Amino acid sequence: MDEKFIKKTFILAKKGEGKTNTNPIVGAILVKNNKIIGQGYHQKFGGNHAEVNAILDAEKNGNSVKNSTLYLNLEPCCNFGKTPPCTDKIISSGIKKVVCADIDPNPKVNGKGLKIMEKAGIEVKYGLLKNEANRFNEHYYWHIKNRRPFVALKIAQSLDGKIASASGDSKWITNEKSRKYVHKLRNKYDAILVGINTIIIDNSHLGVRFVKGADPIRVILDPHFRIPENAAVLRDNKVIPVTLNPKNFSTKQKELYQKLLKQGIKFITFDEKIDLEILMSKLYELNIGSILVEGGAYTFSSFLKAKLINKIYTFIAPIIIGNKNSKSAFDYLNNVKMTETVKVKKNAYKKFDENILIISYV
Amino acid sequence: MDEKFIKKTFILAKKGEGKTNTNPIVGAILVKNNKIIGQGYHQKFGGNHAEVNAILDAEKNGNSVKNSTLYLNLEPCCNFGKTPPCTDKIISSGIKKVVCADIDPNPKVNGKGLKIMEKAGIEVKYGLLKNEANRFNEHYYWHIKNRRPFVALKIAQSLDGKIASASGDSKWITNEKSRKYVHKLRNKYDAILVGINTIIIDNSHLGVRFVKGADPIRVILDPHFRIPENAAVLRDNKVIPVTLNPKNFSTKQKELYQKLLKQGIKFITFDEKIDLEILMSKLYELNIGSILVEGGAYTFSSFLKAKLINKIYTFIAPIIIGNKNSKSAFDYLNNVKMTETVKVKKNAYKKFDENILIISYV
Repeated sequence: MDEKFIKKTFILAKKGEGKTNTNPIVGAILVKNNKIIGQGYHQKFGGNHAEVNAILDAEKNGNSVKNSTLYLNLEPCCNFGKTPPCTDKIISSGIKKVVCADIDPNPKVNGKGLKIMEKAGIEVKYGLLKNEANRFNEHYYWHIKNRRPFVALKIAQSLDGKIASASGDSKWITNEKSRKYVHKLRNKYDAILVGINTIIIDNSHLGVRFVKGADPIRVILDPHFRIPENAAVLRDNKVIPVTLNPKNFSTKQKELYQKLLKQGIKFITFDEKIDLEILMSKLYELNIGSILVEGGAYTFSSFLKAKLINKIYTFIAPIIIGNKNSKSAFDYLNNVKMTETVKVKKNAYKKFDENILIISYV
Repeated sequence: MDEKFIKKTFILAKKGEGKTNTNPIVGAILVKNNKIIGQGYHQKFGGNHAEVNAILDAEKNGNSVKNSTLYLNLEPCCNFGKTPPCTDKIISSGIKKVVCADIDPNPKVNGKGLKIMEKAGIEVKYGLLKNEANRFNEHYYWHIKNRRPFVALKIAQSLDGKIASASGDSKWITNEKSRKYVHKLRNKYDAILVGINTIIIDNSHLGVRFVKGADPIRVILDPHFRIPENAAVLRDNKVIPVTLNPKNFSTKQKELYQKLLKQGIKFITFDEKIDLEILMSKLYELNIGSILVEGGAYTFSSFLKAKLINKIYTFIAPIIIGNKNSKSAFDYLNNVKMTETVKVKKNAYKKFDENILIISYV
């Protein structure tokens, strides 16, 4: 019975995907006499937590939450964040029992929430379907412990592992269904990151289309500030150009720089070279808990060299591109021998008609 | 009922895989009063056909085949090959009905066998499970119509599409289960073909191990006759070196050439360059109906350029090799634009633990 209700919290939690930034996605259900009397989820960063929404929902429907059981995919918080501690609210509302899939890995919580409630006389249970609960909050579990974003690569390649033709063109290697799935992915990540060549060659939009959802933040690695003024990616201020010191910009570059600053765009700059590890920390401070890196080969290779990759989505299409001058995803690695290869853990496959997606963890 | 028996002929037929050379694999079942009274399959090139073995089996067991029904995956032959026409034997034995999955695409048969039997008063039926029957005899269906071998590539690559590290090493990209499956494949093909570099770098054995079955013929593309005298592949006379004109060999090369001729090895030679299309015809004349091409990149690319590929087995392992100096399977293609890519038809996937095999048709 508990399992059934925990699973329902998972479904609720997922409604918040892509909207809670560095917060985890959480779903909550209140049950009394085996009937659901209220439910809620964490809808957006800064908004009510799931448990509060569930209590409000029950009250709205005229149900007393007194002596009910609260189901959650994650331990209730006991700290002041953007909102007051949920444990206070739970205790004062007279809830009798709390069942959650896992404790909150946030060092500020990490079991303390459960203890506080236990001390207040609430029956507490956790660990049910923990692995599954971990998986759909993998971004959160990673960044809350490591203080930097969860990084995934999205690679679209031919059967022979090429991500573009020798002329640099990559439109389109994968099919429509695969590309639509990428838009779903974009919606799950707080930011998309690409190297400047991807912008110059493809004028990529990097927005969410075909599926409902807000555009993620676009991070552009552009050390020499070569971004064209009319680049589609500069359409609003949800873009973070990463450049070397603007002091050294040419007059023309300085003009564009000023214009973009006025537009509300914030730059991240480095003095000599872009240090990806420091960049990750800076982006985390900006509330970016997960990043989808979409290319190109130089950027993919740099992230792998810096050991900053968590996950790789490799889409493989049934075409052969060939030619030694066409790029593969990691052509900028300097490994020479088979013993220097990087092993990944294959996790899952997904089929999109004749395309296949291989999901791996690094 | 018919379907059940036809399926049994498929299982029988497959016992002959890898042993019938340019002949199709065929299974036969004799049924009387819904009971199997005899069965057989084509066991080896030059040996009895399946229907004859089924009749002999029935007789051996003291069963009269008179008025029985004969099930086959392929139409009985009506021509003199290595053995007399099966249709004669079927007619004289008093069989009442013949059911086969498909007619024989061999122009010498191609429905004539059925007509002859029909004229002799036998009830004839065909077309049941035809597609499935076609598939496991795909080598035969191809070469009997096109007069050249069915060609498949076997590619073992990393997640990023590399078939060797920058140092040329490729041991081992794929896992043991994948490699074991390759030995099963070798057993299904009449010949294995590789470029000389594969022999020089890996000293490949190219035999069948781990599974029961005879070694296939090894064809080595070695225009400048660089094969080392102690190459494992020269262990017997089941090897066909393909070289340019031996007249131009050095003294040392001539010595090895004479030694190999004495060993019973037959060469195929070309004057200026190896013409793969002509080579395919010559190999077909030598009774090779199917070839598994195992590398390397130059050989794969040459076959693709010559439009001689039927099928591609791509094994993908969960490792990243990287480095632009490491080879991908088709690096010697000269295609530049996305519009010049070669489309293949994905047919099936197979999983070998963390490796995946993508089977495609060109």
